[in-house]
Amino acid sequence: MLVQVAHDALLLALQHVLRAVSANNPIPILSGVRIHTNEDGIIMTASNTSLAIQYRIPLGDSSATVQKAGAIVVPGRYFYEIIRKLSVGPILLEAKERWFLTIESGKSQIRLCGMDPVEFPSFNHSLSPDPVRKLRLANGSFLKAVKQTAFAASTSETRPVITGVSLVFGNELLHLMATDGIRLAALTIPINGQATDISNVIIPANNLKEVAKMFSAEEGLIEIETGLRQIGFAMNNLQIHSALIEGAFPSVKNIIPQRCISQVVMEKSSLLHAVERACVLAGDNIIRLSVTPESVELTSKTAELGETEEEVQLQTLSGDKFIVSLNGKLLMDILRCIDKESIKISYSGSMSPIMILPVEDTSASLFLITPVRTASSFT
Amino acid sequence: MLVQVAHDALLLALQHVLRAVSANNPIPILSGVRIHTNEDGIIMTASNTSLAIQYRIPLGDSSATVQKAGAIVVPGRYFYEIIRKLSVGPILLEAKERWFLTIESGKSQIRLCGMDPVEFPSFNHSLSPDPVRKLRLANGSFLKAVKQTAFAASTSETRPVITGVSLVFGNELLHLMATDGIRLAALTIPINGQATDISNVIIPANNLKEVAKMFSAEEGLIEIETGLRQIGFAMNNLQIHSALIEGAFPSVKNIIPQRCISQVVMEKSSLLHAVERACVLAGDNIIRLSVTPESVELTSKTAELGETEEEVQLQTLSGDKFIVSLNGKLLMDILRCIDKESIKISYSGSMSPIMILPVEDTSASLFLITPVRTASSFT
Repeated sequence: MLVQVAHDALLLALQHVLRAVSANNPIPILSGVRIHTNEDGIIMTASNTSLAIQYRIPLGDSSATVQKAGAIVVPGRYFYEIIRKLSVGPILLEAKERWFLTIESGKSQIRLCGMDPVEFPSFNHSLSPDPVRKLRLANGSFLKAVKQTAFAASTSETRPVITGVSLVFGNELLHLMATDGIRLAALTIPINGQATDISNVIIPANNLKEVAKMFSAEEGLIEIETGLRQIGFAMNNLQIHSALIEGAFPSVKNIIPQRCISQVVMEKSSLLHAVERACVLAGDNIIRLSVTPESVELTSKTAELGETEEEVQLQTLSGDKFIVSLNGKLLMDILRCIDKESIKISYSGSMSPIMILPVEDTSASLFLITPVRTASSFT
Repeated sequence: MLVQVAHDALLLALQHVLRAVSANNPIPILSGVRIHTNEDGIIMTASNTSLAIQYRIPLGDSSATVQKAGAIVVPGRYFYEIIRKLSVGPILLEAKERWFLTIESGKSQIRLCGMDPVEFPSFNHSLSPDPVRKLRLANGSFLKAVKQTAFAASTSETRPVITGVSLVFGNELLHLMATDGIRLAALTIPINGQATDISNVIIPANNLKEVAKMFSAEEGLIEIETGLRQIGFAMNNLQIHSALIEGAFPSVKNIIPQRCISQVVMEKSSLLHAVERACVLAGDNIIRLSVTPESVELTSKTAELGETEEEVQLQTLSGDKFIVSLNGKLLMDILRCIDKESIKISYSGSMSPIMILPVEDTSASLFLITPVRTASSFT
């Protein structure tokens, strides 16, 4: 392999794929980045057991030329550190005997010990031979959907299935859902295309966040392909594959309260700021909401430290006044990901989850949070 | 105590003093910030065993008014977190019975458990009764002096005296010096004023860096006062006291090579970038410089990873060609703090320290770095 590539193009490619290179992978080849050439360009690939990322540096303009086709695997972080510190200008990469890569730029000459690319796991473009389902989605909708659901997934490995985000493909709709057992976030967005065999998958929430972060600067349509064991995301020069979590995602139908006692509509940002302040002195993060026709009062307390009292205006209250205690940090997460001005909070009794809905949201998002039962001294 | 203070003024004051509040201080009162009032304003003070910071919110304009004089100590980090999250606007602070502080702003009411201010260590304004020496210095010169010396101090507590920066006051000159046993940075700057009893002190390098960071945005003259056990820095509304390190700083006179074999002048930034690249693959950070009349060649090597070769142009070489191996990371630190375009490297033999001087620097800085002896296979 002998290629010439512009410094900024190579650096950009490495910044993308490096997210799949773990610092101390027990499998040596996975600490590497595979470089190979084909008719489309110079392709960089990195992979760990859960996430694989491929970035293509296109040929054609002055940024990249292939003088001799080939492939090599180089140690990812060292290669990136070297490239990052080279000065701007063309870089010559040549694979030599016994998997050495020489890097030439200006008056710098580097010889880097590489590895045989045959040992590198293949990046399965088509996700075949699994049955495959494809759809295209406006990237903006995709990013919003991830932001509004992935945060609610569990971070504890005791129930692996809820560390993921559930995707259920309907005929014209895509349902996303995540939960950690105490709170739940669900969202439905319209899609084009019909259902196939593969009607639902669970993606590790951290991978989904990583995918959203990497595509956050792009505009246009993102292509999503699901197989039985993998899901793929592709747009422009970037392709990402994530492993799926096996298992059945808990059903939500029985959790959503069917009828409510009270509904209160209020400004989201006022409530969020009040919750943020109340959390500073909230022991175990527990804050109390006391809703009357006049206002919503938030209180929190930590013995030996102090207590807070906040009053937030409400827009409307239908039904009875109520008092509920809940985890303020979890409520904060929910409020932060809502991008509407007003929210509606539905109360269905002290044993039922609180339901929070953005007012006037066409994308049909829904958030639930289970109240905490507190000692009578506090309530 | 009953005071009213603008949100931004209080926040700024807390951001300054909080640097002296350690997260888990075994002495509970030191996790606090003392608030007290006097005729000059509202004074915030924080202190740990090594550093004390005082910030004054001046009265007179609308930003602060004292309705009732007094003092209280509040838990520093919680108080800061609460103030940070309050909305913009006036804040009312009132010390109540049994050292409770009430914080009122808009519709927020917070009660915070405080402590008796009598137990708080006093912030000794005059540093008396120690003999005191005062001087004023342009803040720009002070910041530059700290930047060019403090980095070279040792971070290991095995020899506490070299974790500090030595300040020696001459008649019209101030000498600063720091070393970690392998490298040394020294700087002489002109000052006004005559020598007194207190002719030299050692300041913990980390405190000095902290002081420089806090004064970095200010312009004007910084006032420095030294006592026997403390040094004070003051400017505008901010005063900082640092403990001193007791002991004798190692003498440098015998270390500076008296005559050199070779001198090479070269561009600083070219050398710095080459060293940065060479360090990526430098085992134990060791890089080799090979200086010939034609060029300076830098090489580095790590078994199993690879090797680098860099060529840097030189401007002049007087004396013989030479080869020397040294710690690239330490050399990088030195080059990064030099703000001149050209440097002169003096070589005095394989057993003597390399001397690095900025070319055309009136502030008389000097850097030394001791070479490493390497196995013959590498040299």
